[in-house]
Amino acid sequence: MSRIDDQLAFLTEADKLKSILRVTTLCDASRRENSGEHSWHIALYAMVMAEHARNPVNIDRVIKMLLIHDIVEIDAGDTPIHGDHDAAAIEIVEKAAADRLFGLLPDDQASTFRALWDEFEAAETDDAIFAKSIDRVQPLIANLETGGGTWRQYNVTADQLQSRVGVKVEKGAPAIWTALRGRIDAWFTQHTG
Amino acid sequence: MSRIDDQLAFLTEADKLKSILRVTTLCDASRRENSGEHSWHIALYAMVMAEHARNPVNIDRVIKMLLIHDIVEIDAGDTPIHGDHDAAAIEIVEKAAADRLFGLLPDDQASTFRALWDEFEAAETDDAIFAKSIDRVQPLIANLETGGGTWRQYNVTADQLQSRVGVKVEKGAPAIWTALRGRIDAWFTQHTG
Repeated sequence: MSRIDDQLAFLTEADKLKSILRVTTLCDASRRENSGEHSWHIALYAMVMAEHARNPVNIDRVIKMLLIHDIVEIDAGDTPIHGDHDAAAIEIVEKAAADRLFGLLPDDQASTFRALWDEFEAAETDDAIFAKSIDRVQPLIANLETGGGTWRQYNVTADQLQSRVGVKVEKGAPAIWTALRGRIDAWFTQHTG
Repeated sequence: MSRIDDQLAFLTEADKLKSILRVTTLCDASRRENSGEHSWHIALYAMVMAEHARNPVNIDRVIKMLLIHDIVEIDAGDTPIHGDHDAAAIEIVEKAAADRLFGLLPDDQASTFRALWDEFEAAETDDAIFAKSIDRVQPLIANLETGGGTWRQYNVTADQLQSRVGVKVEKGAPAIWTALRGRIDAWFTQHTG
């Protein structure tokens, strides 16, 4: 196989991300969102919202990180943030998926892409912390736009939202959390006890 | 409205791109592709294929260009490359769409995004020429993966493919066209007179 053939094999396999369904719906509630279009949307979010990062980020790296962050779901599936899950078990499955999927690329690109994915997962660098916060903001907007969305489905409380979503958004993009706080508080006041 | 409110209004409106259907299907032919997931896929294509650009490109600009290149379709719809269409009429509708959609952003970002979209449309800079070529490669792969895809639907001939797709791919990424030539020629030899 030539180098281009390897690259095309990866890109054709990546097409399957469009068939991985998330629990979140589109903002018009017409259907569940897939992880391919979600990846586009959060890359666009990052491009628009870069100025709100808590610490300065390299937005070009953040965008690339977000473009590949969910590719492991082709083998591992999506893990809903508000569902119950075994984090250690998921980590094993996702690492195997990263081995196989990024391994389709030529060696130099496999290493580069894998390092970027590992950095996102570790959530320690400023770029990764901002990327993670953006990944949490977009479904939150979908929930606000659809009258509660997955918050209803999983009976999420205001405390759970704060601990699973709020903390991560505040860590990477505090101004966005502040801007959304009014709408979020209003929803939870109205819908939960 | 605050700056963040304007940015969120744009990002929420952009969600509608996930409901704009293209004529191309996914690589497993299970359904038609939408322009949101298409935008993700070609940004990933560009990230992987940057080294094959005919002239050196700023890949970070190319990726941003591809992330926003189809947003006008929210108002203007998708124009199939192999269909008949009035290019001048489409241009008017797409420019009005760009005015409205990028106009949702704060003024500075509206100008930046619009300039990037105008550059893509003009297809004169090395970045835009490469972006356009990548935008042509991805559906071509979907057609090859699905036994002809839209080539069957529109009775495309080898000459039409060369003039509408091949010329643009060769202009921006000649090595990719060369790599695909064998599979393309084999399909057209087998399926057309």
